[in-house]
Amino acid sequence: MAGTKILVAQGGGPTAVINQSLVGVALEARRHHGVERVYGARHGVRGIVDEDFVDLTQETSHNLELVAATPSSALGSTRDKPDAPYCHTIFEVLRAHGIAHFFYIGGNDSCDTTYIVSQEARKAGYPLRCIHIPKTIDNDLVGSDHTPGFPSAARFVAQAFAGANLDNAALPGVYIGVVMGRHAGFLTAASALGKKFPDDGPHLIYLPERAFAIDAFLEEVKTAYARFGRCVVAVSEGIHDAAGIPVLGRMAPELERDAHGNVQLSGTGALADLLCEAIRTRLGIQRVRGDTFGYLQRSFMGCVSDVDQREAREVGEKAVQFAMWGERDGSVAIRRTGFYSVDYELLALNDVAGKTRTMEDAFIAAGGTDVTDAFRLYLRPLLGSAMPDAYRLRAAPVARRSALAY
Amino acid sequence: MAGTKILVAQGGGPTAVINQSLVGVALEARRHHGVERVYGARHGVRGIVDEDFVDLTQETSHNLELVAATPSSALGSTRDKPDAPYCHTIFEVLRAHGIAHFFYIGGNDSCDTTYIVSQEARKAGYPLRCIHIPKTIDNDLVGSDHTPGFPSAARFVAQAFAGANLDNAALPGVYIGVVMGRHAGFLTAASALGKKFPDDGPHLIYLPERAFAIDAFLEEVKTAYARFGRCVVAVSEGIHDAAGIPVLGRMAPELERDAHGNVQLSGTGALADLLCEAIRTRLGIQRVRGDTFGYLQRSFMGCVSDVDQREAREVGEKAVQFAMWGERDGSVAIRRTGFYSVDYELLALNDVAGKTRTMEDAFIAAGGTDVTDAFRLYLRPLLGSAMPDAYRLRAAPVARRSALAY
Repeated sequence: MAGTKILVAQGGGPTAVINQSLVGVALEARRHHGVERVYGARHGVRGIVDEDFVDLTQETSHNLELVAATPSSALGSTRDKPDAPYCHTIFEVLRAHGIAHFFYIGGNDSCDTTYIVSQEARKAGYPLRCIHIPKTIDNDLVGSDHTPGFPSAARFVAQAFAGANLDNAALPGVYIGVVMGRHAGFLTAASALGKKFPDDGPHLIYLPERAFAIDAFLEEVKTAYARFGRCVVAVSEGIHDAAGIPVLGRMAPELERDAHGNVQLSGTGALADLLCEAIRTRLGIQRVRGDTFGYLQRSFMGCVSDVDQREAREVGEKAVQFAMWGERDGSVAIRRTGFYSVDYELLALNDVAGKTRTMEDAFIAAGGTDVTDAFRLYLRPLLGSAMPDAYRLRAAPVARRSALAY
Repeated sequence: MAGTKILVAQGGGPTAVINQSLVGVALEARRHHGVERVYGARHGVRGIVDEDFVDLTQETSHNLELVAATPSSALGSTRDKPDAPYCHTIFEVLRAHGIAHFFYIGGNDSCDTTYIVSQEARKAGYPLRCIHIPKTIDNDLVGSDHTPGFPSAARFVAQAFAGANLDNAALPGVYIGVVMGRHAGFLTAASALGKKFPDDGPHLIYLPERAFAIDAFLEEVKTAYARFGRCVVAVSEGIHDAAGIPVLGRMAPELERDAHGNVQLSGTGALADLLCEAIRTRLGIQRVRGDTFGYLQRSFMGCVSDVDQREAREVGEKAVQFAMWGERDGSVAIRRTGFYSVDYELLALNDVAGKTRTMEDAFIAAGGTDVTDAFRLYLRPLLGSAMPDAYRLRAAPVARRSALAY
């Protein structure tokens, strides 16, 4: 009798460690004797409806290990958000190949897809085990302590702000760094981990969990600038006013919108430029610089958390173990069990699908422009080992001697 | 008899390794018995006219080593471009403190400052040894094989494009990364070192050494997109038309200009946004994303070339040795002596001061949108060891089985 066939695919935005999960699935599945083939679908669910599969069983384990350490989605990804008919097509293709296990690595939309496919199979009486494997730099999946991909992106943001702070200290002015995250501010908040000394930036952090008002923003920048002689600001691309309208959408109505009417927030420097311009014209500060971290923060090669690598590999492995030895479909989640250790559990798909976690109130400081120590304690172990550190001169000042001084 | 006093300062934009040069000066000077004090001026020449000095002799060597490994300018920097009266003031302060050796770490403007101070001292008959220590991510100093700071920034750009290419392959579209460099394209050209496979990006590279025309640009993007199904583009912030007018200045006339009428090119996403918009509207490509690397490329913490670190330290050390045992003022330069090894020499200050090197024709491919193998061979050893590498799946395709395929 032929053994079971497994299909794995990757959806949504790539991360630095999503291939660890892919390879975790492939290598763990390959060691199960009942597994005949491990297929990968190219470009996520799009590759399933297009029936564009590759045979991961015909990969060397050596090359799989090298791919695991490579960022972005090795199978390719997609932004397709399948509706019920699309999921029905997915299911038909799986049936045609006799695929008995479906693993989808992605965020909450991918979990939703997995959920619908799972239901279609059940309706048709077809035995299909469906497991969602978590991945998102936004850290916005409910039920998980954190999501694979977030720690490495957070490390990039922390290191970027640590460097930007040093640059801003050398040539004082206002610096704004715009970070990804439409609804959840976790990644923007990670900027706080780039701060070492009390007068280091980021001096202000603006999250989508709090309403943004330009007047209050300018007042806060002005105060910080007066206090420190400079100001480093972390801003989430998803900041919005009290009515929930994105600042970027309101200030720049001509921007690209998707089918759902969402403004395309990433891949443009418009928000940073708009805020810089407001500071220049309304506060009269001359040196104002804005960077938009854009795609660097999720795909930069060579900035990864070893903790994230390990966990991303393990959620892939655990997904296969849950599928082979468990009794139900589900979404793999990370549970924190120590400082620092984790375990994995399988949540019901519909407890995760389509839901969005945002930053807990306990993680946001009362003023709304900083994080709490609880957040620092939450994030620090995720960033992994060998974080670069910033040191300062402690040299003594020299007394004046020139006639010019008097 | 009191020994000699040394002053060191840092000017211009920070780099990842400029503190290596500072510490190279401090540690080398401290081992010379004739040296009584090593002073550092805070915020470059501004700290000299403000007489804001710290005593680096009162630093532990341990802390100096930690500062050396920290990016940005530990003494602070300045954008002041001293004229002759300003340099005269510098000289007066040096004289008041009995400083006999002046080291200025910076680019060609800083070399110019060193040159004028050197002349002032000679005119006044004051014995002052003036040494310029090279630093610039732009790699635009004449007479040097390359400049400290450039290799680490180039490594950031190469790693960023390697990652952006993988991201763009996973979710195909057009990606534009805008890189620093007003006149010299070296840093933008470094994007080519992020390319591994023949179909990898960057597929197109636009340098300030070649005139930019929007129509030709769009045609080239269209051709690459048709060929690869996607397109990754590296663009220098300094691209300009055949008349020498910066694209950014012509397309966005409202942008900030400095006292010299130069458009502020960095710290804004405007150029990437303008080019993306042109691709969207005129080529009808939907997924178009632009990132401006901005200050990340010169101050990101945790991306440094070990070769750059070593050489930046050595130019500082050599500067002191040239000052102590040499007979003349000058600018330290790196000369390549092997594949790969270097030696250091002292050039005359006025052979470097205020001059700008741009990319040699031999480094730019005939079509003007790529680099040559000569450039790849030139740059690769500078990037240092342990460059991250990208690997691909080589898995075999799976034959179609579903009724949908027919």
